[in-house]
Amino acid sequence: MNGNTKLNELAKLIRYYSLVSTTEAGSGHPSSSLSAADLMAGLMFGGAFRFDPDHPEHPNNDRLIFSKGHASPLFYSLWAAAGKVTEQELMTLRKFGSPLEGHPTTAFRYTEASTGSLGQGLAIGLGMALNAKFIDKLPYRTYVLLGDSEMSEGSQWEAMEIAAYYRLDNLTGIIDVNRLGQRGETMYGHDLSVYEKRVSSFGWETIVIDGHSMTEILGAYEKAFSTEGRPVMIIARTVKGKGVSFIEDENGWHGRALKKEELGRALEELGQVDTSIRGEIRRPDDLQPEKQEPRKLAEISYTAESPVATRRAYGNALARIFPRFQDMVVLDAEVSNSTFSEIFKEKYPDRFFEMFIAEQNMVGAALGLSRRGKIPFVSTFAAFLTRAFDQIRMAQYSDANIKFCGSHAGVSIGEDGSSQMGLEDIAMFRALLGSVVLYPSDAVSTEKLVEDAARRQGIVYIRTTRGSTPVIYERDEKFPVGGSKVLRESDEDTVAVIGAGITLHEALAAYEELKSQGIFIRVIDLYSIKPLDRKTLKQAAKVTKAMITVEDHFAEGGIGEAVRSEMADVDIPIHSLAVRKMPKSGKPNELLDYEEISKDAIVRKARELSQGG
Amino acid sequence: MNGNTKLNELAKLIRYYSLVSTTEAGSGHPSSSLSAADLMAGLMFGGAFRFDPDHPEHPNNDRLIFSKGHASPLFYSLWAAAGKVTEQELMTLRKFGSPLEGHPTTAFRYTEASTGSLGQGLAIGLGMALNAKFIDKLPYRTYVLLGDSEMSEGSQWEAMEIAAYYRLDNLTGIIDVNRLGQRGETMYGHDLSVYEKRVSSFGWETIVIDGHSMTEILGAYEKAFSTEGRPVMIIARTVKGKGVSFIEDENGWHGRALKKEELGRALEELGQVDTSIRGEIRRPDDLQPEKQEPRKLAEISYTAESPVATRRAYGNALARIFPRFQDMVVLDAEVSNSTFSEIFKEKYPDRFFEMFIAEQNMVGAALGLSRRGKIPFVSTFAAFLTRAFDQIRMAQYSDANIKFCGSHAGVSIGEDGSSQMGLEDIAMFRALLGSVVLYPSDAVSTEKLVEDAARRQGIVYIRTTRGSTPVIYERDEKFPVGGSKVLRESDEDTVAVIGAGITLHEALAAYEELKSQGIFIRVIDLYSIKPLDRKTLKQAAKVTKAMITVEDHFAEGGIGEAVRSEMADVDIPIHSLAVRKMPKSGKPNELLDYEEISKDAIVRKARELSQGG
Repeated sequence: MNGNTKLNELAKLIRYYSLVSTTEAGSGHPSSSLSAADLMAGLMFGGAFRFDPDHPEHPNNDRLIFSKGHASPLFYSLWAAAGKVTEQELMTLRKFGSPLEGHPTTAFRYTEASTGSLGQGLAIGLGMALNAKFIDKLPYRTYVLLGDSEMSEGSQWEAMEIAAYYRLDNLTGIIDVNRLGQRGETMYGHDLSVYEKRVSSFGWETIVIDGHSMTEILGAYEKAFSTEGRPVMIIARTVKGKGVSFIEDENGWHGRALKKEELGRALEELGQVDTSIRGEIRRPDDLQPEKQEPRKLAEISYTAESPVATRRAYGNALARIFPRFQDMVVLDAEVSNSTFSEIFKEKYPDRFFEMFIAEQNMVGAALGLSRRGKIPFVSTFAAFLTRAFDQIRMAQYSDANIKFCGSHAGVSIGEDGSSQMGLEDIAMFRALLGSVVLYPSDAVSTEKLVEDAARRQGIVYIRTTRGSTPVIYERDEKFPVGGSKVLRESDEDTVAVIGAGITLHEALAAYEELKSQGIFIRVIDLYSIKPLDRKTLKQAAKVTKAMITVEDHFAEGGIGEAVRSEMADVDIPIHSLAVRKMPKSGKPNELLDYEEISKDAIVRKARELSQGG
Repeated sequence: MNGNTKLNELAKLIRYYSLVSTTEAGSGHPSSSLSAADLMAGLMFGGAFRFDPDHPEHPNNDRLIFSKGHASPLFYSLWAAAGKVTEQELMTLRKFGSPLEGHPTTAFRYTEASTGSLGQGLAIGLGMALNAKFIDKLPYRTYVLLGDSEMSEGSQWEAMEIAAYYRLDNLTGIIDVNRLGQRGETMYGHDLSVYEKRVSSFGWETIVIDGHSMTEILGAYEKAFSTEGRPVMIIARTVKGKGVSFIEDENGWHGRALKKEELGRALEELGQVDTSIRGEIRRPDDLQPEKQEPRKLAEISYTAESPVATRRAYGNALARIFPRFQDMVVLDAEVSNSTFSEIFKEKYPDRFFEMFIAEQNMVGAALGLSRRGKIPFVSTFAAFLTRAFDQIRMAQYSDANIKFCGSHAGVSIGEDGSSQMGLEDIAMFRALLGSVVLYPSDAVSTEKLVEDAARRQGIVYIRTTRGSTPVIYERDEKFPVGGSKVLRESDEDTVAVIGAGITLHEALAAYEELKSQGIFIRVIDLYSIKPLDRKTLKQAAKVTKAMITVEDHFAEGGIGEAVRSEMADVDIPIHSLAVRKMPKSGKPNELLDYEEISKDAIVRKARELSQGG
């Protein structure tokens, strides 16, 4: 019993810390933290969890993710009980500049990935577990603390399904079933059988416990540890606000810090708290993943004679560069024969993971992989990446290193129609801090940019085209991010036409037709939309009297607006051709004309601008 | 047996139509259509489905949604077999200008809602079923055809869970378990027990059948019809490509139309097809929902003495305007005490639906409600609307009439930190065809704009602020969409400052400080971001030497870029203050200063621009 006594004392200390820190902050989620205090104290200090707090990056550390990110006071308090955060630091909770933010972010050294948008933690954990089992081949385990309310998020069931499919027995979820959501009881209250039946039907081992019995808690972790072949879900009956009688199981206490007077009463109830005790965390075995030596890259081999779809070049590139970037992992959502990630899959099947039609989980898993040092390349149709915008949004707050590829960009995909057309993806990916947004127009530039993406840190988005387009660059051409290519220029250029992807080729065709009419345009391939080549555009603005941007994308948030933002202080009119009409089925060329982003539309606009004042 | 014989003949005719139309189109998904032909023929012509094809809008029609939208050839062929589409029209499949698009859109009169992005149909059906049961109180039933691959989308499980919660026994799903996805076998192949166990655990009645036995099919619909208290899922074992031996159950035929020679062989196998037969559809009872007479609105009552958060004004507005707009339905995702939709809930509980933490389903349900003539108002944190971007994207292709409210906009929410901050929502909602994007700065304008949103057709987005802000408008002020308010102006204005929401108040404070320094700025409240008041901005550009936009939103795709797009042909420099640094926890004012979108930042920028050439 002695072990449990110490653990219960640690849990009490953690409760104390959760309460005082939120009262000091004047906000936060103490009741959501209190319900899981025993579960977490038992995990971290009861021998199950193996972690070296002085080396949080150790590759064989177990991983703990708070999917219920609002229980951040609990998270920080755990580490304080481990002796790695002082009480003084705890009192900086939620203050400007403190690493102890309202929801855990990677500013805090023990946060595995920033959370706070519910229902995302299990996918992140899945990514880390995939890494342990199939890539690093290390025995570390991943634990994810889940709230009951957030189990209504479909993303959790995606993660559950796919974790079972991959037999991730190194992944353990813990549902803190405390009955109360933000504004009242959850759908199932304390009926644990509902969770048990569902989770079980998704192929997980389930262990139902009293979430405040340290004996049952420790037993559950032990059983989870020894379960083979399937992931494990511990389903714990808990009480929101456990430890403070006037909060316990009461509605109205979600996201509510105790006032000073209330805190006084709460601490009286907690009783004597020994703030000097500290918990020991078991250390992991000092195992390292095998590292492969990077090898030389094969040459690119495209010829101007054979048009190639940039989506195909993406697949080729993945396969070509892997020997140099052996931390790469490729994920796809059931469309690998369309995105051509299958080319990589065929060559390196051990590093390809089918993620099925579940894009949210795919992105969350990519975040988990990225946090464990891998370089995930994530692909599906550009339109379907919108399915995971919240996960993509959250990744930017986790210092993520994820490369996204959205294929089937624009109306030019043709007959499949609007549901399959990516028309807002440039806007979506531009609106992420520090993202890189690339839109290569040919196979050579695609290969080079995919390689650059692997080389650089951060979120990169590459947009690819469905149809084949001419190879227009030599294989030793360089494509610096933030650069552009001036493909046609002269001193007589009246208008600069800025295109990318499919419209770059429309612009080149327009050039020929205009030239035959005695009108010269500068044609710029804006393969790097963010960051954007301001210098080249400013140079063009010195010579020409107007600019036209042309994009197979909606008018808002895309190339046109990106160019205008960059050229805000330059005195030149900028006209944007973009998709402004309801898209529909049709042949690619018909649709480009209909949306007035085709060669003919460019010619018309350029003529109009050339003739104007 | 006679009935079944006719049905089987109709199914054969439908197969014929699916094959010839896709071969004519040169693309499309015949194999995915063939697997469900018997299921759909049995539904539509076997007596279960009640629909008046001459009055597709009849409020008591049953509803059929193809969640597996790529089976559109089947969908159109069904209606051809009903005599409502000619074979000639079928041959226009996927052609530019034809209502028979690659995936069903509302351009085709029998499409309930545009689909094609998988995993969205069940939520749309849920919305229609909610309408039938709780609002229109009509006995019509909603049927959703589902693919097996798309069952991995978490959104389907959100819909399943919430349909069971609301005991929607008027909702029937049919899973076409044909084993093969896009690039190979699904996770479970033909193991129907997996689907059965999971669906059952989510509270649905399950009926497992042979999807090619007309007897079993009809029996399933009959059983579904008589099931009470829970929704029903028919789980049908089918064969992809059923009816054409060389396609049946073969990989590699997804999304692949038969070539002419292959079609010839396929038609030979089908045998004699009587293209003159037509199926009868049972008619619905001619019942109408009760219509309430619109009643007069109460007056707005805010005073300049009491600041009010615009999020609270949103809730007040919903409750105030409902008597006039009695087709309103309010949906929220577990945060009604934060978005203040709870104010409506308290007054009109029958028209409020808690949608729990499942935003994707909430938006899909809203689309379903909108298609049935209701006016859904959908709210959650602005940041969490990104969870449903794919559903929002698809809604624009369905002529949707949905009003979205995103609360907790920007860094000014304070201590909760980045995960809760809406910083990309303006960009997201701008990138939808024909959307209206509104960002009221005070309670009066919020109320007026919510009322306008209810009055107009289409997708409207209203962004609200967490903190209380001063009431700055009189209650009889008008706020036309596409307008703006010039709050401070003079002939000596050197700089125009364009703000909205929280930054409008920062701009007003900056005005005072600058005035005391002898610098005059024009202050414009851009409450209508899309459409945007070009006229007023052009007018300001005549007087001032520069413009500053200031927004609590990322720089990309927001107010700054919207203004620049509208002012593309006006010669004035436009500087944008926006969120450009990693957001974090802190007090609202600290964060506004840190991100340089505060009063002080505006003052600095205005001084700099006033003094420059």
